Amino acid sequence: MIYELYYWPDIPGRGEFVRLALEAAQAPYRDVAREAPDADRFDAVLDVLEDEATPELPFAPPVLRAGDRLIAQTPLILRYLGEHHGLAPADERRRLWADQCQLTIADWLVENHDTHHPLGPSLYYGEQKAEAARRAGLYRAERLPRFLKYFEAVVARNPAASGWAVGEGLSHVDLSLLQMMTGLRYAFPRAMQRLEPDCPHLRSLHDRVAALPALRDYLASDRRPPFTEEGIFRHYPELDG
Amino acid sequence: MIYELYYWPDIPGRGEFVRLALEAAQAPYRDVAREAPDADRFDAVLDVLEDEATPELPFAPPVLRAGDRLIAQTPLILRYLGEHHGLAPADERRRLWADQCQLTIADWLVENHDTHHPLGPSLYYGEQKAEAARRAGLYRAERLPRFLKYFEAVVARNPAASGWAVGEGLSHVDLSLLQMMTGLRYAFPRAMQRLEPDCPHLRSLHDRVAALPALRDYLASDRRPPFTEEGIFRHYPELDG
Repeated sequence: MIYELYYWPDIPGRGEFVRLALEAAQAPYRDVAREAPDADRFDAVLDVLEDEATPELPFAPPVLRAGDRLIAQTPLILRYLGEHHGLAPADERRRLWADQCQLTIADWLVENHDTHHPLGPSLYYGEQKAEAARRAGLYRAERLPRFLKYFEAVVARNPAASGWAVGEGLSHVDLSLLQMMTGLRYAFPRAMQRLEPDCPHLRSLHDRVAALPALRDYLASDRRPPFTEEGIFRHYPELDG
Repeated sequence: MIYELYYWPDIPGRGEFVRLALEAAQAPYRDVAREAPDADRFDAVLDVLEDEATPELPFAPPVLRAGDRLIAQTPLILRYLGEHHGLAPADERRRLWADQCQLTIADWLVENHDTHHPLGPSLYYGEQKAEAARRAGLYRAERLPRFLKYFEAVVARNPAASGWAVGEGLSHVDLSLLQMMTGLRYAFPRAMQRLEPDCPHLRSLHDRVAALPALRDYLASDRRPPFTEEGIFRHYPELDG
């Protein structure tokens, strides 16, 4: 089976969390919008959101087509891929714990997005710059350190002491933490320089994931969309303190 | 086994989504903070967030203790309770679809919360009223209708045509949609009056859930925390247009 990933073509966004799992699993997939002719890139995503043939109506991308199924919601796609490709713990209790971490990463991602879009997705950044400056200040001072400290503790307290987030082996949680660390370094380089010394476990987890043979080439390839000021992780120096 | 629910004692918040599942399942549980002496109500919740004995560190309440396990993240608690108490479809594909709906409800809940807290949880409403007015206007005009239309379609397009959201029978998704409808009617009565005529399936689903024998008494009891201007659903007339 060849998976199909539907996500906006020009940003890493939430789609990148799915791509990292597909790449780490070396699962064959089509990145539908990125492989489409220029004129059809967005329609490819919009069409799947209105697919009348599926009873599982997606609300928003990313959407993964797996055979005759459509699966939306990043944490759920990752659970599905994790279970089918050895990127989730075999034990049910630990698998649920991996899901729990993934849901907290999803919450973290929203708060990150809201630093530049505190008034919501309907307005451009330029229409909410003053509000963004206030929200980003609070994020850097309170929420960002809290999320980092939490995930640092998750890795440090993993009873398997494997250096991975959950259990003995690599899981989708580690892949997503790589993306969070990479994105945060892009968006908030100054804040991260201040905070990273307290996150030795997250730093070495990042390096270990980035060095995985299955990912190393991908991360350097043009299949990986670069961070830009259109995505979730945006570098606006005025929001970095 | 007697479950233990840990959630802030005075608001429905996310805890209420879990309570509705426990009540509908008629599962025995302690509502720890609400049953604690006044002086200990908040500590009961804070303590469980710092429980060194669990490898599954919660980030935020609600937290459910099930035997020797702690489970956090509302959609995950609902999946767990759903599977153990007949509130999730038996079929794996449909169970995943129920999870997908629950994750979209979680996203919707965040956007609802952000109408009164667009600058994040660190400031009071009174410190972000102008920003809240802008965000709430966009929410009423764009996002609220979009989420309502989506879940109306979910119920209308359920291939089982059962009147429930997923499959043949009641699931945790229906319980959560009751809470969304109830909360939205409390917070945005004028907007909902305008939008509800287009949501006949959601309206009758709401009425059907509210009439369930296992829930009817609970909904009228003082075990159910009332909506107030401390929770996620707040009625500020200035945000209702």
